Amino acid sequence: MTRSERPVAEVTAAVTAGDLRTAARLISRIEARDEAVGPIVRSLYAQGTDRRVIGITGPPGAGKSTIVDQLIALWRKRNERVAVLAVDPSSPTSGGAILGDRVRMTRHNTDPNVFIRSMSARGQLGGLSSATGDALIVLSAMGFDRILVETVGTGQNEIDILNHADTVIVVQTPANGDAVQAMKSGLLEIADVFVVNKADTPGADRMVALLRESVEFSGRSHGPDDWIIPVLKTQASAEIGIAEIDSAIQTHTRYLDSHPDYDAARRRKRVRTLLMERLAELLRSRYDGDARQASVFEEQLNAVLARRCDPHTAARHLLDSAR
Amino acid sequence: MTRSERPVAEVTAAVTAGDLRTAARLISRIEARDEAVGPIVRSLYAQGTDRRVIGITGPPGAGKSTIVDQLIALWRKRNERVAVLAVDPSSPTSGGAILGDRVRMTRHNTDPNVFIRSMSARGQLGGLSSATGDALIVLSAMGFDRILVETVGTGQNEIDILNHADTVIVVQTPANGDAVQAMKSGLLEIADVFVVNKADTPGADRMVALLRESVEFSGRSHGPDDWIIPVLKTQASAEIGIAEIDSAIQTHTRYLDSHPDYDAARRRKRVRTLLMERLAELLRSRYDGDARQASVFEEQLNAVLARRCDPHTAARHLLDSAR
Repeated sequence: MTRSERPVAEVTAAVTAGDLRTAARLISRIEARDEAVGPIVRSLYAQGTDRRVIGITGPPGAGKSTIVDQLIALWRKRNERVAVLAVDPSSPTSGGAILGDRVRMTRHNTDPNVFIRSMSARGQLGGLSSATGDALIVLSAMGFDRILVETVGTGQNEIDILNHADTVIVVQTPANGDAVQAMKSGLLEIADVFVVNKADTPGADRMVALLRESVEFSGRSHGPDDWIIPVLKTQASAEIGIAEIDSAIQTHTRYLDSHPDYDAARRRKRVRTLLMERLAELLRSRYDGDARQASVFEEQLNAVLARRCDPHTAARHLLDSAR
Repeated sequence: MTRSERPVAEVTAAVTAGDLRTAARLISRIEARDEAVGPIVRSLYAQGTDRRVIGITGPPGAGKSTIVDQLIALWRKRNERVAVLAVDPSSPTSGGAILGDRVRMTRHNTDPNVFIRSMSARGQLGGLSSATGDALIVLSAMGFDRILVETVGTGQNEIDILNHADTVIVVQTPANGDAVQAMKSGLLEIADVFVVNKADTPGADRMVALLRESVEFSGRSHGPDDWIIPVLKTQASAEIGIAEIDSAIQTHTRYLDSHPDYDAARRRKRVRTLLMERLAELLRSRYDGDARQASVFEEQLNAVLARRCDPHTAARHLLDSAR
């Protein structure tokens, strides 16, 4: 019996008991979209309880990994067990090189109470957000005190990934002034906490002011009692400002805990998006796997190519015949 | 009768006759996901023939807009009619500010034979690639000699947009060395032509060498007779290298023309992806629009939130009851 054929109950029990090697293998299979992990994830989901997930994002070079590294150190001092999932939504064939290597090389590699994994599109079209969701189900079941998901950028793919987080930290640097100016409203949409890192470089105060103004000007009320997005200044490489990030995360968690209706509504909105993503994936795999469905698909594809039918009408036919 | 209620035949005829104002309004409605444009797009698609579409992408600041501006000037000298669609797939709430403004301000704004439009996610979740497809159907029907679609970056959203192009130009600069190193295989996957712009800045030759090596090392055969991705050096701001880009586009078009099976297979693969995108969108709009479907969806959503059901199983139920 190969490792991948271990019974569902055995793998589930090992993960729940916190077995890191079993969890690592399971997440690799999730990353590879191995359908056989379905029953395991389902069983973990049914048993699990919701753990708060912290999301962190920002442009390449903003210092996200350094911040994560410092946060891990801080949490370890309090003896909390920490899991980090670094998700690379860039080109499906880049193999996660941008994010993964950096994270894997942290000093926490040998600490058995720190679990760091990277995950990328790995040549798989789509499904990275669902795979992230499944990996987070595994990490939740393992009972980590802190679960953090890191991703690059703030485009739609990154927003999909951050959809799994309860508290989202958006990191910027003074060098990103133009981009922030242009994307202000988009950033306000996803951030619960702003961090201006590299605060010792020129323009830091201007950047902080820009973000604070944006928050005020937008009248950004994330919740019923106006969660005002804090704007923090950090110098992660000199360990300055890390405790403030931790404190902002805790404040936001308490805010969510004390506003259960708001918390539930946010979660509902997130799960709604996740369900839609899953549906689209299922549809895709159905046309690849089922011979009859595949031939219906080919028929419509040929009609579009021959201009007998437009793409929209063809998709409508397909949905009507999808069972 | 408001303008948006003009009969399908009238709008179709105006677009086919090349009426720029009608086309601009139609594309605005496509951008806003106005469902009423469906019959118009369908009618244009049925009448139209396939026009070659050129795609251009690269990181912000690589000089894409300058290159496009110079290409337009070159094509206008040959009296070709040119359409440019600038698509901004960044955050759905950024409103397209990053790309759009720059493009709109070109010197070709007053030339009636140049049609420049920008298009963004504009707060709409998903569907930007389909909207791009519909806009390109409009531009094809208008009979432009050159149709170019410009987008930022090389993430999954950008790849979806470039999926509409026959020839894809990937622009980099010497400053992007690290990113290119990390994303090599992803770039090779989408590029038909590489351009290293700002060739007067340090590291240009190293960047060209890096890309050439990557092309050789990958044994990148895009087609039956090994289309070797050319790597061009340009200084767009000084009008250096633009004729070479134009020439590379023409060479690639001739390559496609002389390899009809390969060309058809590429097109087939692209339309397959487009159909999948449309299907996912249809599904999404169905749960928003249809009361019975919406209640089935809510039921599954509640089951997932209560952990009575996992997201994957819930999606499966939904697909089985989707009609």
